[in-house]
Amino acid sequence: MFKATIQDISVVKDSLDAISSLITEGTFKITSNGLSLVAMDPASVAMVIFNILPSAFLEYECSEESEMTINLPNFVSVLKRARANDKLKLELTESKLKINMEGDFKRSFAIPLIDTPHGSQKVPELSFKSKVELFANVLKDGIKDASMVSDCVVFEASPESFIIKSFGDLSETKLELTKDSPSLLSIESQETSKAKYSIDYLEKMLKGVKPTDKLLLNFSTDYPIKIDCNKIDKYQLSFILAPRVDTE
Amino acid sequence: MFKATIQDISVVKDSLDAISSLITEGTFKITSNGLSLVAMDPASVAMVIFNILPSAFLEYECSEESEMTINLPNFVSVLKRARANDKLKLELTESKLKINMEGDFKRSFAIPLIDTPHGSQKVPELSFKSKVELFANVLKDGIKDASMVSDCVVFEASPESFIIKSFGDLSETKLELTKDSPSLLSIESQETSKAKYSIDYLEKMLKGVKPTDKLLLNFSTDYPIKIDCNKIDKYQLSFILAPRVDTE
Amino acid sequence: MFKATIQDISVVKDSLDAISSLITEGTFKITSNGLSLVAMDPASVAMVIFNILPSAFLEYECSEESEMTINLPNFVSVLKRARANDKLKLELTESKLKINMEGDFKRSFAIPLIDTPHGSQKVPELSFKSKVELFANVLKDGIKDASMVSDCVVFEASPESFIIKSFGDLSETKLELTKDSPSLLSIESQETSKAKYSIDYLEKMLKGVKPTDKLLLNFSTDYPIKIDCNKIDKYQLSFILAPRVDTE
Repeated sequence: MFKATIQDISVVKDSLDAISSLITEGTFKITSNGLSLVAMDPASVAMVIFNILPSAFLEYECSEESEMTINLPNFVSVLKRARANDKLKLELTESKLKINMEGDFKRSFAIPLIDTPHGSQKVPELSFKSKVELFANVLKDGIKDASMVSDCVVFEASPESFIIKSFGDLSETKLELTKDSPSLLSIESQETSKAKYSIDYLEKMLKGVKPTDKLLLNFSTDYPIKIDCNKIDKYQLSFILAPRVDTE
Repeated sequence: MFKATIQDISVVKDSLDAISSLITEGTFKITSNGLSLVAMDPASVAMVIFNILPSAFLEYECSEESEMTINLPNFVSVLKRARANDKLKLELTESKLKINMEGDFKRSFAIPLIDTPHGSQKVPELSFKSKVELFANVLKDGIKDASMVSDCVVFEASPESFIIKSFGDLSETKLELTKDSPSLLSIESQETSKAKYSIDYLEKMLKGVKPTDKLLLNFSTDYPIKIDCNKIDKYQLSFILAPRVDTE
Repeated sequence: MFKATIQDISVVKDSLDAISSLITEGTFKITSNGLSLVAMDPASVAMVIFNILPSAFLEYECSEESEMTINLPNFVSVLKRARANDKLKLELTESKLKINMEGDFKRSFAIPLIDTPHGSQKVPELSFKSKVELFANVLKDGIKDASMVSDCVVFEASPESFIIKSFGDLSETKLELTKDSPSLLSIESQETSKAKYSIDYLEKMLKGVKPTDKLLLNFSTDYPIKIDCNKIDKYQLSFILAPRVDTE
């Protein structure tokens, strides 16, 4: 059986909120290493790899491995009901996930488990030519700029700089970080990588990150991007997104 | 004739705002004891009993009893236009309610009186088995929780505890206050009372209450609930709401 | 060629935002005296006369007179993307307006120029009987009051007072400033002027003004109004609006 207590739900809630904008039904594997979720969005364009570490919890008890498939937006709605100082207890029963909140008074919620015929998703093996580490607010700014003129954005990494740009019918936007920009934490690029991604997906993925969060972008030319947004001792979270490739 | 001056409109405005979400045309009886309104909502599910006391006003002058039927949402719109330190003067003429606001400058508003063929509503005689006094924010939290899984909420009072709960297809929510909860101010219950009420109506009724307002709930099993939200020296306000009774 | 740098875009941005709610395509004349825009709204009810002074810029370079027609809402969207301390550089090329933003990092935007067959608008010669100077928040309050009961508002100036009023089917609103009101900065009125104007247009025009901005209203009976909202050393901005004349 699985039981766990968490004091500060906010860290996990924001990530789950972003994930639930991509994926409705999610299957968590529950082991002594934490709760892990690997899932594709319905259009098979994006993948989520999420692992909440046991150290994110005050107490974490898992006697045997199990699976739990739940409606993620419903789960997030319940988590959003927690008051600031509530202690949350999760408990898995045969048919339900129970969530107890204890603060000034006691509240309890139950979410039904969903039968799932799907086997679990496999994480694809990917190797990337460019790795860019930067603050979330810069990435969000560049994407928001781009959204004014297009529904997709181009990322371009060279050994010297990282560029976020977009082209509309006649308009253009461009955000450039050079190696000496304080906003660019690190860049490793063996060659120039250039690829185009959906703004809509990126915005959903970045919904939960804070402006000062550090993100690692991994990509190559016309190749998927993997965005890592990890929180030490709390969770590992990666999003993989397929590129848009022009077929002209 | 009727004339009155009020310094701090905010107290009365929030109550009227809640009332106007249930009732469009309201008939006030104006006497030397204040302005009183007793009205049913159009679906005859809810009743409002509102009495603004003369002591809520700086000056209150009523030479003879009269009636005034006005469009409540319009009246509330005008009251919302008052600036923070405005002094409001109400004056009833033959065909209009005049509202003057005096602060840095003078403003005046006039709202037409409505002809009303209806006799006034009678307040039903009700006797209740359970009385629960609690802070408004706890009640609102329990109802908001419930709204995630259902359109109605169950109140259950026993001599020892008060419970707000709801059941969806498979999901559940429950908020429990025991006799020793600091959020439960008092409870009197001769037996276990349990009844179900519309969340939509409750939310409209509670729209104007502040988180720290004290509310008194009066109800019995499958019986109407009366919610008292009084403000000493300002007004008496009660809402009565019919229960939802399962007919299975 | 035209090049200019501006440090604090906020001043100009708010005005352009208001203008862009009235006019979609705008033609700026660029001379050594600044950027000027004279345009009618599509319904020919309102005119905008806007002149951004060279002193609003850190650097302003204009070697020869030119014209630039752009989509104003798009231009405003780009300006809104500027971060608080960004320095903005505008540069006009043959087919585009380039906007560079420099702060923690560099961003660049390009907006296409639009071919325009229209000759430029002429500012009509108008002479006014009444001039009223007041704070923007008072004017906005009076117009907002009026919007509850009508879609147009009456301005009435006499040697002694300025009144903003409106009439609905049966409701009325009135805001009165007398000569000694601290909110009325000055009034000059040879006779009583009274005219009615569209609230929708007025609200769009006043969208960008701050509560404490000083405005000068110039009007006469059943005659256009000119609203001057100038910012010393930054810009001159006037809106002219045709009156509503009852044809009963």
